[in-house]
Amino acid sequence: MKRIMLEIAYDGTNYCGWQVQPNGITVQEVLNHHLSELLKEPVETIGASRTDAGVHALGNVAVFDTNARMPGEKIAYALNQRLPADIRIQMSKEVRADFHPRYQVSEKTYEYRILNRRFPVPTERFYSHFTYIPMDIGKMRKAGEYLLGEHDFKSFCGTGAQVKTTVRTIHRFSVERENDLITMRITGSGFLYNMVRILAGTLMEIGGGAYPPEKMQEILAAKDRKAAGPTAPARGLTLIKIDYKNGKEEE
Amino acid sequence: MKRIMLEIAYDGTNYCGWQVQPNGITVQEVLNHHLSELLKEPVETIGASRTDAGVHALGNVAVFDTNARMPGEKIAYALNQRLPADIRIQMSKEVRADFHPRYQVSEKTYEYRILNRRFPVPTERFYSHFTYIPMDIGKMRKAGEYLLGEHDFKSFCGTGAQVKTTVRTIHRFSVERENDLITMRITGSGFLYNMVRILAGTLMEIGGGAYPPEKMQEILAAKDRKAAGPTAPARGLTLIKIDYKNGKEEE
Repeated sequence: MKRIMLEIAYDGTNYCGWQVQPNGITVQEVLNHHLSELLKEPVETIGASRTDAGVHALGNVAVFDTNARMPGEKIAYALNQRLPADIRIQMSKEVRADFHPRYQVSEKTYEYRILNRRFPVPTERFYSHFTYIPMDIGKMRKAGEYLLGEHDFKSFCGTGAQVKTTVRTIHRFSVERENDLITMRITGSGFLYNMVRILAGTLMEIGGGAYPPEKMQEILAAKDRKAAGPTAPARGLTLIKIDYKNGKEEE
Repeated sequence: MKRIMLEIAYDGTNYCGWQVQPNGITVQEVLNHHLSELLKEPVETIGASRTDAGVHALGNVAVFDTNARMPGEKIAYALNQRLPADIRIQMSKEVRADFHPRYQVSEKTYEYRILNRRFPVPTERFYSHFTYIPMDIGKMRKAGEYLLGEHDFKSFCGTGAQVKTTVRTIHRFSVERENDLITMRITGSGFLYNMVRILAGTLMEIGGGAYPPEKMQEILAAKDRKAAGPTAPARGLTLIKIDYKNGKEEE
């Protein structure tokens, strides 16, 4: 028996998120199915990030245990031959048997993309959120500075989430504009349910001039979901990567 | 009667190209249909560039004549309410009655995108051509220099095309890499059938080391389609813009 780690990229457009659920097809379900067929034994993956319906990933992580003889690094190639075009393994390798993608200390990076121009661009429609309201990225950057460090992000936690604590640590935050495309990138130790999308929705209100950047402090202090802006659409969000810090476990 | 110019962006994935044809749905057909419904009279557009099946556009141009009273610049907004999400008008305005998008002197810019990494990325699959063969963009740039200026591009003309002359002028050519995405951008007075895709296929052979950059000179001199590389897939190609040079006509 060995434990294999996968790095998985997917286009979330046609999936009901990562995690297996009764109401629709999910990335995990498709992955489990094709892994089981490839390795000729029942395979159940454990995912690092249970991304929502419509959210994309470049580097989500999952592990599974198998008795199959196929070398860890070959699995990516073999599995990609079977997967639909909207899921592609980026890397596979053997890891320690006690490596758990959610309990291991890690740093996650998300990107939220906003297309900011007069009219939408069809080729961007699945992978960005469109707004014609001019965005001031200087204001968005300033507001983002208040997010850095350890804070109680209760105002940015989607309702219905059950967590022990709403305190999280943000390590890095940036906003860049390239022509009409604004990319927000955020790295932290972990994120609450819908946190990046609520942050994106709030930063768009600040970027559009509805509130000054300093409003971000008040919103954090309120510890109330109603104080923050709307949840921005899933299509603009991509889980870029997950870095495991005490990386010895994965070597 | 007035003549209206449209700038049109589309995701070509689900269309049999621009021009109306019996075998499948085209961008022009969808545009004519919705324009006719909007303006309550039969409308027939004349397109600048008859892009192939699967090719995208950010700024194709078309004109049509109408008796409708709607101001030219309002048509973009009204038409976008009716069009499917994979077609979006970027601009509309009234132009001189004799303005013809194909006979007017113009400069066209195309982009060809190549995703160059170990495994494909699902969110890029409709808008780039994937190769895992490492591309040397220095070699591609050097090969591209031979294309600048006036040349007989017969070697880069798709078979079946009927044209008076295969001489064309290339004004600008660039290759940039941003992480794993290579973007070739080419601007010229006009392009032969499949010319940008055959150039892209040839430059990929040079970038991958199959031939040295100097081979481009030989290929041009051969004036034979068989001397050039393969036609790269449509999905990597986008018509970025068309600039009308003696722009007085469109003011």
